[in-house]
Amino acid sequence: MNKTITMQHGSGGSATAELIHEVFESAFSNEILSQMEDAAAVDGAAKIAMTTDSFVVTPLFFPNGDIGRLSICGTVNDLLSRGAYPKYITCGFIVEEGASVDDLKKIARSMSETAAEAGVQIVAGDTKVIEGSGGVYINTTGVGFLTDDRDISAANARPGDAIIVTGNLGDHHAALLSCRMEVENDIQSDNAPLNDIVDHIRKFNIHTLRDVTRGGLATVLKELAEASRQKFIIEDALLPVDSGVRDFCGIMGLDPLYMGNEGKMAVILPEAEAKEALKSIKESRYGENAAIIGRVESPGSVEEEGGLYSRTNIGGLRSLSVLMGEGLPRIC
Amino acid sequence: MNKTITMQHGSGGSATAELIHEVFESAFSNEILSQMEDAAAVDGAAKIAMTTDSFVVTPLFFPNGDIGRLSICGTVNDLLSRGAYPKYITCGFIVEEGASVDDLKKIARSMSETAAEAGVQIVAGDTKVIEGSGGVYINTTGVGFLTDDRDISAANARPGDAIIVTGNLGDHHAALLSCRMEVENDIQSDNAPLNDIVDHIRKFNIHTLRDVTRGGLATVLKELAEASRQKFIIEDALLPVDSGVRDFCGIMGLDPLYMGNEGKMAVILPEAEAKEALKSIKESRYGENAAIIGRVESPGSVEEEGGLYSRTNIGGLRSLSVLMGEGLPRIC
Repeated sequence: MNKTITMQHGSGGSATAELIHEVFESAFSNEILSQMEDAAAVDGAAKIAMTTDSFVVTPLFFPNGDIGRLSICGTVNDLLSRGAYPKYITCGFIVEEGASVDDLKKIARSMSETAAEAGVQIVAGDTKVIEGSGGVYINTTGVGFLTDDRDISAANARPGDAIIVTGNLGDHHAALLSCRMEVENDIQSDNAPLNDIVDHIRKFNIHTLRDVTRGGLATVLKELAEASRQKFIIEDALLPVDSGVRDFCGIMGLDPLYMGNEGKMAVILPEAEAKEALKSIKESRYGENAAIIGRVESPGSVEEEGGLYSRTNIGGLRSLSVLMGEGLPRIC
Repeated sequence: MNKTITMQHGSGGSATAELIHEVFESAFSNEILSQMEDAAAVDGAAKIAMTTDSFVVTPLFFPNGDIGRLSICGTVNDLLSRGAYPKYITCGFIVEEGASVDDLKKIARSMSETAAEAGVQIVAGDTKVIEGSGGVYINTTGVGFLTDDRDISAANARPGDAIIVTGNLGDHHAALLSCRMEVENDIQSDNAPLNDIVDHIRKFNIHTLRDVTRGGLATVLKELAEASRQKFIIEDALLPVDSGVRDFCGIMGLDPLYMGNEGKMAVILPEAEAKEALKSIKESRYGENAAIIGRVESPGSVEEEGGLYSRTNIGGLRSLSVLMGEGLPRIC
């Protein structure tokens, strides 16, 4: 087939069929997809979790990852955040004319490998072509099984809970920004599926789990503090940040607390279980740099309800809000 | 908030939260969405159907429909094509900077109304912003429940089956094309959720159901003939086409058999049940123009296996293939 996508590949006719066959079927082949029905029929469960995420990252390929790997990780990690066992993924491609067919093949292969790592099956797909200049956008939607009545939720953080982050902050964001600015360094994206970490801590009494993505840890924790109506305090000195990322942030005037990851979780659970949970996380794949970074307290006043505070290295408390303004768009 | 989308709305910070709150939460409000978790927890079933579809139609608003209504109908109809009961929808928006916030609100309202008509719940959403000039793209992914062991499949058409189409061909395609060419006429899109039609014919022994979309009826039937390895014969004289669409096609040199619909099904079932099924379809919402248009026969030779033929008005048989070349892209 052509080496470049044209509008013809979006017609629904023979060119579309060729694109799907050569790029997607060959990468994703499994028994369910090969039926080529309008909808896939799969085994269900009494309770399921559903999540959707679109990926518009530029560039498509970055150090240690690509939009394909990212699109599987993001959706898998959202299902894990609810305590679900990720099972099925659908993928919807929107491709601009001018996109390289070889790039699409690489992306599809990366999705297939990441799906295998995360233990999920790609069960349905769709491809559309739009005018443009070679961009690729991917929606992935996931279904997971919920197997018990545990309520892991943004609203469940309780006073006396510890806050754990499963690894270094800001890696994905710093890697993307370095790429876009053509800065040469060794910073790698952390995009990864976190099944192993979550499976290692299912035995603990987890109150809240949240994937740390756009907006960074501060935005995520602020949202959790608000949903739980508690006061969160984190310690600047305890935040795990890779030295290369720290240096890069220093030069750029960026705060790792507001930089996105794609392979980190915030875990909130009773302080009594925190050390054991930390140990389990550190023994998991992608969990080696996990740290206990703060705690949940009872708000002392109405103003403190839903507040997020960080204790600075000189001992003061600063109040943190969600990310304001631009951030770096299109990191996922 | 601003009247126009900017890159800031894609940062994951406060501008994103404002966009989601003002545009999507207010239109889609339901108990599951309002939890604002990374994943929705919902009731499942032992067997489920899953499908995904992205919508990139231009213009966003067209006679009798819009991208929002279309995005719900397309996914609902794909689930129905498998015999499933549509239950849950996720929606992923990719919005170009410059898009109108008022348009987004209208689209979200239309999705909400169409979801109510189709009996599905919008359970999860995502919004991303990209550079561009005001385009809006929507992915919807659907989950339906499969409640029996019936195998409705593209591969199940059998010799002696009748082929029914549930209404006029080409309406959506002709409406879109008229819009883009700024031709004034009364042609309306047929975008509609087909739950009522499918619910009316569940009592029959349906072998194959297929939503007639991109590529038109000929492309769809050719794919079904190939999947079933049978010979399909349709009668040109029996094809239901609105007179306005027929005139428009005549002037433009277009064949309604290759023009997309967004509210029509091809139904294949034993000829003995066809008349009763047709009656039921005609009594259903959106089914008034349904017609029996052809039959499935045993292929007389290897060449005829998977073949689609139409009997012309002068009695000859022409062999039809899937849509070749361009068609009209971006009709859905």
